[in-house]
Amino acid sequence: HLHDRAAAQESVFARMSRLAAQRGAVNLGQGFPSAPPPAFLLDAARGALGRADQYAPPAGLPALRDALGADLGVDGADVTVTCGATEALHLLALALLGPGDEALMLEPVFDVYLPQVALAGARGVTVPMTLDPARGWQFDLEALAAAVTPRTRALLLNSPFNPTGTVFTGEELAGIVALARRHDLWIVSDEVYDELYFGARPTPLRTLAPERTFTVGSAGKRLEATGWRVGWIAAPPGLTPGVLGLRQITSFCAPAPLQAAVAAALPVARAAGFYEELRQGYAGRMQRLAAGLRELGAAVFEPRGTYFLTALHPSWTAETLVHEAGVAVIPGEAFYAQRAAPVGLTRWAFCKSDAEIDLALTQLGAAR
Amino acid sequence: HLHDRAAAQESVFARMSRLAAQRGAVNLGQGFPSAPPPAFLLDAARGALGRADQYAPPAGLPALRDALGADLGVDGADVTVTCGATEALHLLALALLGPGDEALMLEPVFDVYLPQVALAGARGVTVPMTLDPARGWQFDLEALAAAVTPRTRALLLNSPFNPTGTVFTGEELAGIVALARRHDLWIVSDEVYDELYFGARPTPLRTLAPERTFTVGSAGKRLEATGWRVGWIAAPPGLTPGVLGLRQITSFCAPAPLQAAVAAALPVARAAGFYEELRQGYAGRMQRLAAGLRELGAAVFEPRGTYFLTALHPSWTAETLVHEAGVAVIPGEAFYAQRAAPVGLTRWAFCKSDAEIDLALTQLGAAR
Ligand SMILES: CSCCC(=O)C(=O)O
Ligand SMILES: CSCCC(=O)C(=O)O
Repeated sequence: HLHDRAAAQESVFARMSRLAAQRGAVNLGQGFPSAPPPAFLLDAARGALGRADQYAPPAGLPALRDALGADLGVDGADVTVTCGATEALHLLALALLGPGDEALMLEPVFDVYLPQVALAGARGVTVPMTLDPARGWQFDLEALAAAVTPRTRALLLNSPFNPTGTVFTGEELAGIVALARRHDLWIVSDEVYDELYFGARPTPLRTLAPERTFTVGSAGKRLEATGWRVGWIAAPPGLTPGVLGLRQITSFCAPAPLQAAVAAALPVARAAGFYEELRQGYAGRMQRLAAGLRELGAAVFEPRGTYFLTALHPSWTAETLVHEAGVAVIPGEAFYAQRAAPVGLTRWAFCKSDAEIDLALTQLGAAR
Repeated sequence: HLHDRAAAQESVFARMSRLAAQRGAVNLGQGFPSAPPPAFLLDAARGALGRADQYAPPAGLPALRDALGADLGVDGADVTVTCGATEALHLLALALLGPGDEALMLEPVFDVYLPQVALAGARGVTVPMTLDPARGWQFDLEALAAAVTPRTRALLLNSPFNPTGTVFTGEELAGIVALARRHDLWIVSDEVYDELYFGARPTPLRTLAPERTFTVGSAGKRLEATGWRVGWIAAPPGLTPGVLGLRQITSFCAPAPLQAAVAAALPVARAAGFYEELRQGYAGRMQRLAAGLRELGAAVFEPRGTYFLTALHPSWTAETLVHEAGVAVIPGEAFYAQRAAPVGLTRWAFCKSDAEIDLALTQLGAAR
């Protein structure tokens, strides 16, 4: 027999994309854009092919570590490049947690966090965000504090938060940092949507608690190339060697030509206002989708960040929508492991074209 | 503190490449070619950019699974695409082994095997290959059989074998398979050098024991693009879902545009005789390097496969060669964890240009 740990279910994101493809449904499920990556990124990759095709150092190409250092305001020596943010999170669970340890996270919870913590031999403990139909998703610092035990080693946070769209306020972040300091907890801050926000710019947790914060980021999310597998960890000063010891044995290094392309593209994206354009485009599509879903009778919770919105509709389930309306979305249940999901909760990706959003809304209307 | 497991040393391959770059040494250490990948692979990648940039399914792009199925003579549904062979081996350790289990492997041993097995909570047990100065590296099936205990779960083999260059004979393979069947052991067969051989074509272990063999392969090794991070696992029929459950949380998927390029390139490589050409080129460079090293007084053990040779020279160490002769190689000690390396053993990569090999030999001669 395979080991017990080899018994997981198919990823809900992969499953919904598979169903969408099989049924010809509009895919508003998995979080990847319909548009191709920007030309400046593609051109950089075409130029890197034939020049940067062999092993990169496990920590990443020096040019990419430097570019990330400059972009994030950290020392490039504290950056480790990974095969996407998923590997970054896997590595950090292994580096920070062991048997007997607990990691605290919020629920709804991104699907890989709990199995990754379990794979490290530790226990993931979730604290609820509550969904108030009038005020939207509510974060409760006191509930988080109350869940700390002597075994708690790490807080695993995500801001902007997939799926709720929450961006923690300065006050909330200060409370989180004080809690982490009081109990000497690591902070793993999944900030893959750091450039995707609709109100105030999110404050990176590392700027408030540099001594204990591991930031996880993603070129795929920032630069619209989710299949490229270039993610990163920015570690507290001096702690990168420990991460690297593991990184060498999980996949050795990230794809070298794509690393070279991202290194070239990061300063261009910043200088050319690419992220502002992205946010503007997404803000419009978020409104388009939200308005359409409201017309169809859903309660919509607009995100402060990410490219997802959540909605409540008493008669919608992801299973029936994909089969009956030809629209793939992510079921709320996919984000709940330790308690029940709000009834009628679904998550909708709006990193898709206007045409896809309109077609989805038309098909939903027709299927009523 | 970071967890204990985050305490590994820098990879010897990364370290020697770093030293080579810092000191301007000829790099005959880490196993990557000096030549760029073939034009048919690069062109396919340029064509995939802008078309296959978003998440692939965790198991791999369907076109690549199909191409690998056809190339390996297995069902594409039994193939999982990974971020290089390193991730494939990491995944298999997690899928097959747990606390209390033992995995048997041969020593000299590729550096990631033991830490990967330890990360899965299991114990790696090595069985020696002996180096007979007259007859070269010797495999001892009886020693392997004697190391099996009731806790043994898996044999982890590598053929063609890095660093010894061994290709197991039909008789040796039959003995290994009989042993695995007698004790109901999994076989993890690292065949990343499957197309790099100089005598008889290596027999894939899966053809002899399809019910228990997980084959690990690498587009980077076959197609001269070690930095692309496209590897694979061909699992026994029906066992891929267990591998995938873990694969989703280690890195979700392998780089999509590079997967698309490899899918297009695999049948071309086969049809165009690319591997034959590669072998011919490498056979010549192996002879060139071997002759030069012998002239300098080394005993050279010519490989049956891989692009490495091993040599014994009483006064050569990797440290002194890189510093005093400007030639980076891999120290024999890097492949020994449970016993002492043969004194004076070094490993030399010949996947480099004639010019580099000649320069290395000249510098070695001058440094005497
Ligand atoms: C890595 S799978 C998809 C992740 C994501 O973008 C999502 O939440 O849809
Ligand atoms: C993944 S690091 C290098 C592996 C290899 O090719 C080697 O043995 O040099």
